[in-house]
Amino acid sequence: MSEPGALHLVPNTLDFGTAGVPAPLDELLPLGVIRTASRLGHWVCENAKTTRAFLKRVDAVYPLARPLQEIAIVELPRPNKGRDAAPGPGAVDALLGPARAGHDLGLLSEAGLPALADPGAALVVAAHAAGIAVVVHPGASSIALALAASGLNGQSFAFVGYIPVPADERAARIRALEAASRRDAQTQILIETPYRNVALLEALLAHLQPATSLSVSVGLTLPGGFTRSGTIAQWRQRRTGLPGDVPAVFALLAAR
Amino acid sequence: MSEPGALHLVPNTLDFGTAGVPAPLDELLPLGVIRTASRLGHWVCENAKTTRAFLKRVDAVYPLARPLQEIAIVELPRPNKGRDAAPGPGAVDALLGPARAGHDLGLLSEAGLPALADPGAALVVAAHAAGIAVVVHPGASSIALALAASGLNGQSFAFVGYIPVPADERAARIRALEAASRRDAQTQILIETPYRNVALLEALLAHLQPATSLSVSVGLTLPGGFTRSGTIAQWRQRRTGLPGDVPAVFALLAAR
Repeated sequence: MSEPGALHLVPNTLDFGTAGVPAPLDELLPLGVIRTASRLGHWVCENAKTTRAFLKRVDAVYPLARPLQEIAIVELPRPNKGRDAAPGPGAVDALLGPARAGHDLGLLSEAGLPALADPGAALVVAAHAAGIAVVVHPGASSIALALAASGLNGQSFAFVGYIPVPADERAARIRALEAASRRDAQTQILIETPYRNVALLEALLAHLQPATSLSVSVGLTLPGGFTRSGTIAQWRQRRTGLPGDVPAVFALLAAR
Repeated sequence: MSEPGALHLVPNTLDFGTAGVPAPLDELLPLGVIRTASRLGHWVCENAKTTRAFLKRVDAVYPLARPLQEIAIVELPRPNKGRDAAPGPGAVDALLGPARAGHDLGLLSEAGLPALADPGAALVVAAHAAGIAVVVHPGASSIALALAASGLNGQSFAFVGYIPVPADERAARIRALEAASRRDAQTQILIETPYRNVALLEALLAHLQPATSLSVSVGLTLPGGFTRSGTIAQWRQRRTGLPGDVPAVFALLAAR
């Protein structure tokens, strides 16, 4: 038996799906990460096509250790969108085959860190259970960047993902998040699919208290990206348009 | 009146205070971040000495736009350690002077992203209030990396910072975090000053339920860094030593 390989969590850029020519990868990721990516011959990912596009950007900085068509790229079983319903453990465990055979294995998400508000956590759990080392490489998470840019409490915060869409449930959830934020002085962070950005902002402005702080970060690290942060009263006084095709991160902190 | 400058949140590496020769900065940070840092003539930071050391690492990749001794470096007022007690708004607002005068201003922390589990949030709030653009640059947060490497729920998580040190309060807080984790299927993330890493691990092993998952990440992105993740029962069966001089991030998720 050879020593098992490691599972490398490789951060992606945050410019997924944006228009125009992508920036050179070393503008957005550290060279150490790009070099690691260039030598991996086995990948697990959300989408094989975008992974190949990522590897072409890698190749332009550090030539890939083998031709792209010889690199094994396997997609994760699809979970329910935005929910953490895990695929069967057997299906995931099988993805660790290359690591068991002694090869280092990369895990890549479509944007940011794998397994954080993203599929892949089940593979990480399976690796730990199998005694395969999990190595995470430095990269950006849009949630962490949005929190830093918000100025809201970074000593205590919660990420809650998506909230319900139906109006009554949504209003109740927003008020519950505000109450939890007040009780624990805890920033609450949420996300939405881009085409519903404006609807979520309107719901937050309708249901939060005037003294509650709200921050919205749009297109972080992208040209034209911005963060606006202020009280609900300030937001109501001066509306801000949000694009419907760029990811946004919302954060709120109740006044005490 | 000139246009105000922007407040740039500049990520630092995670190798603060570690022994040996530091790696070239472009191994650990994207070139885009290093180039931005190289052109800033005004900085706010936690510690002027380590900021100068950072700028020397920047200079070795992209020459600084002006000599180091001509770069203005101002330290943030000291908050209470690990608590979010804010310094007076006047003292913080004064730090924005260079931005008001039209100069871009950098904010740097000792490790990782500024204003996230770190001082600086008050400065970000003051910038938003003054209409100064806040620009966050892509970089790693040890909390986000630890969560990704844990395999625990990355769709719902909370960072709670430090927990009380006295044994009774600590036990109660650990049980409350486990209950919250079970109720909301939410990963709970905490940190400790390094010399208390072992004591916190022992307290978690003593007070959490056997089926609860615990992950500990030590020295992420550093040589010798590792993540161990498993149930409390597994941890109790096979103890893992933790160093007392390297930052660790702890994450737990209750079984449901």
